[in-house]
Amino acid sequence: MEQVDIIVANGTILTMDDKNSILEGGFLCIRGDAIFHLGTKGQDAFEAQKRIDAKEGLILPGLLNGHTHAAMSLFRGLADDLPLMEWLNNYIFPVERRIDGDFVYTGTRLACAEMIMSGTTTFCDMYLFEAEAVKAAREAGMRCLVGEVLYDFPSTNYGPIEKGFEYTESLIKEWQDDPIVSIAVEPHSLFTCSPDLLTTANELALEYGVPMVIHLAETQSEVAEVKERYGKNPIEHLHSLGILGPHLIADHCVHLDSKDIKRMAEYGVRVIHNPESNMKLASGVAPVPELLARGVTVGLGTDGCASNNNLDLFTEMDMAAKLHKVHNMDPTSMDALTVLRMATIEGARALGLERLTGSLEVGKKADVIVVDSQRPHLTPMYNPYSNLVYSARGNDVVHSIINGRHVMEDRNLLTLNLTEVMARAREESLRVKEWLSD
Amino acid sequence: MEQVDIIVANGTILTMDDKNSILEGGFLCIRGDAIFHLGTKGQDAFEAQKRIDAKEGLILPGLLNGHTHAAMSLFRGLADDLPLMEWLNNYIFPVERRIDGDFVYTGTRLACAEMIMSGTTTFCDMYLFEAEAVKAAREAGMRCLVGEVLYDFPSTNYGPIEKGFEYTESLIKEWQDDPIVSIAVEPHSLFTCSPDLLTTANELALEYGVPMVIHLAETQSEVAEVKERYGKNPIEHLHSLGILGPHLIADHCVHLDSKDIKRMAEYGVRVIHNPESNMKLASGVAPVPELLARGVTVGLGTDGCASNNNLDLFTEMDMAAKLHKVHNMDPTSMDALTVLRMATIEGARALGLERLTGSLEVGKKADVIVVDSQRPHLTPMYNPYSNLVYSARGNDVVHSIINGRHVMEDRNLLTLNLTEVMARAREESLRVKEWLSD
Repeated sequence: MEQVDIIVANGTILTMDDKNSILEGGFLCIRGDAIFHLGTKGQDAFEAQKRIDAKEGLILPGLLNGHTHAAMSLFRGLADDLPLMEWLNNYIFPVERRIDGDFVYTGTRLACAEMIMSGTTTFCDMYLFEAEAVKAAREAGMRCLVGEVLYDFPSTNYGPIEKGFEYTESLIKEWQDDPIVSIAVEPHSLFTCSPDLLTTANELALEYGVPMVIHLAETQSEVAEVKERYGKNPIEHLHSLGILGPHLIADHCVHLDSKDIKRMAEYGVRVIHNPESNMKLASGVAPVPELLARGVTVGLGTDGCASNNNLDLFTEMDMAAKLHKVHNMDPTSMDALTVLRMATIEGARALGLERLTGSLEVGKKADVIVVDSQRPHLTPMYNPYSNLVYSARGNDVVHSIINGRHVMEDRNLLTLNLTEVMARAREESLRVKEWLSD
Repeated sequence: MEQVDIIVANGTILTMDDKNSILEGGFLCIRGDAIFHLGTKGQDAFEAQKRIDAKEGLILPGLLNGHTHAAMSLFRGLADDLPLMEWLNNYIFPVERRIDGDFVYTGTRLACAEMIMSGTTTFCDMYLFEAEAVKAAREAGMRCLVGEVLYDFPSTNYGPIEKGFEYTESLIKEWQDDPIVSIAVEPHSLFTCSPDLLTTANELALEYGVPMVIHLAETQSEVAEVKERYGKNPIEHLHSLGILGPHLIADHCVHLDSKDIKRMAEYGVRVIHNPESNMKLASGVAPVPELLARGVTVGLGTDGCASNNNLDLFTEMDMAAKLHKVHNMDPTSMDALTVLRMATIEGARALGLERLTGSLEVGKKADVIVVDSQRPHLTPMYNPYSNLVYSARGNDVVHSIINGRHVMEDRNLLTLNLTEVMARAREESLRVKEWLSD
């Protein structure tokens, strides 16, 4: 009898491996932090301390949110349906000048609660006071790739940019070899970061072998501004600085031409697509089918709650699949399996975490979710990929395991006190209202 | 002490009346099938048999699904991401030739379960064997506007078109003055219905004073076909037949020019917008902001589950708000309140049911839902309209009352046996698979 820690059984396992193998009536054994065995037969050979009954539902890898600003959960619904500059100048910037570590800790805990409860097990974050974001993520038990946002002007957290690099470096050193926390170097964007800043950031990333994350070609006005300043479009500008490479994770990438796409493929730049944010802020439609056709790795992200306004990757998948169909007037574009892979294994590749997570395979870390399919909107089930992408919602996820730890059981969060997390978030929202009325 | 049947209390009431009045800390009294009182003070003056605690959540009118084919819930995920003609000719048409009354009854019960559990209290249906759809809706306790689909070719249900008119007329007579069931005359579309059929259908609708529902200008190929056959675009064609009028409910209306929009406004034609279906089938983007600017009444629909693939009006609102923003490159387009009104009071106007439902006002029928806001993705709550449209999902609805009857309590469906409904649906799906393998 083989002793393991957790067995997840009685469900259809969607492995999301290279063959998209599906195990009907499958079971999955976890020992320690890793997947020890997957199969359909011979369950009797394993004995576990904990057995999770998937009740004929779907067992799949936890989803990866490739781009968010977790603490912005506290700005959810604060200011919507406004022109971009009014939104930024009258709401987001004035409140962001006032935030502190407590705000980020509280907002990130709220975001982690929401993400776990909607099937996300890994997120990539960019914000201020990121040591606090790490603290919140570790408390929640979430896998994360985190970086302090860097820009030319002084930061509420670290002050001048030199201190920003020091702060980033100390995060990298502190969390090197951590089982769930990874650190990235995260310059904000080409319009808020000088070439010097970008070059220094890039050197830091290469020195430590960590990813560099940046907002890229998100809006037309960004492209225009970069062209005016540097006489080049965003991709050309990065290319001329020698920054394109497989360590670069580029968020949004809405405004690209075919030359940009070719170049990104050539240099192995990875992309995170954020359709809901791009739609809500009227940024445009990213050329994702074209990126995929060129072989660029594309993951999926929600962006922050101020421009979405939730962190549910299930609706993000739904929007991604549908948006490109209507945009290209082609119903075969972005099929359900392609989109689900973007939220799982391709998302893991985009974040450089594919050896750890993104698919259910023996030896990988155990990041596993269970979707309850005994619900009217998931009945009948001709095709699990279709039902997950077009019909399911985040709150159909009933169990979540991250790095071998059971973090949600029958929709009860095991790592955070949800009532307390929400109460603290509401208190912070009162502070935000005060800041705006000052 | 005033005796009433149900009090819904301890929530924020979004009335969706003409002033969009909001009652914080409000309560709502129901006597019989109607709203008897709304207020914030003096709750002690009322005594009720049943008290529903909204737990500081949102109390709002039940949503109206302005266009669906309920029984197509049984085709959910059967065939996605395919070219339109392959989807229709190889999947939908072959199975639709085999369906029967049992199929429609089972599929409509499943759809009603899903709709109630995602906050919809009224739906407008177009399908075959609609007497069975009425039976299912009444069992579920849902308000509905229902019509048998009419077209030139023989129907699996009624046979030749003459019998189709008889069937429709008998439905109208049977359900005249029913508290929750209304009947419409429903010719399928301009490319499946001859001018004679359309004219006869129109006369039948006018004779009985019921709406006429039709798919209109959904795809480019439809417009091309109508132009080729009649030398006119769809709106001109209906105009030349004398069919435009306030009794006409036009579904989709994707391909309209400014002259069409002006004409529709002039004749008081009402429109149902189905963004998810239009996106998934790559039909195009309906000019909804332009229709609204001209004063056309526009409601919201999900279309059937074969092209969506769920019946959740919350995500439909989210998509509607975001799709038009990115399509028009304008973040102020289709704000949250406008979209929520489309799913409530404007949707009721579109279906001609505004005297009964769509807003919470004394004297209207009690179609009321309660949204649980104590959830991480609905926290904090700066703006209830934003949170409902951009953050909420159907399964955040915890209570539903239709026509004064409590049909869902703490997410438990009170009118249908959910387990049995889903089991029957799965049985029917096996039949569908057999039909396809024949």
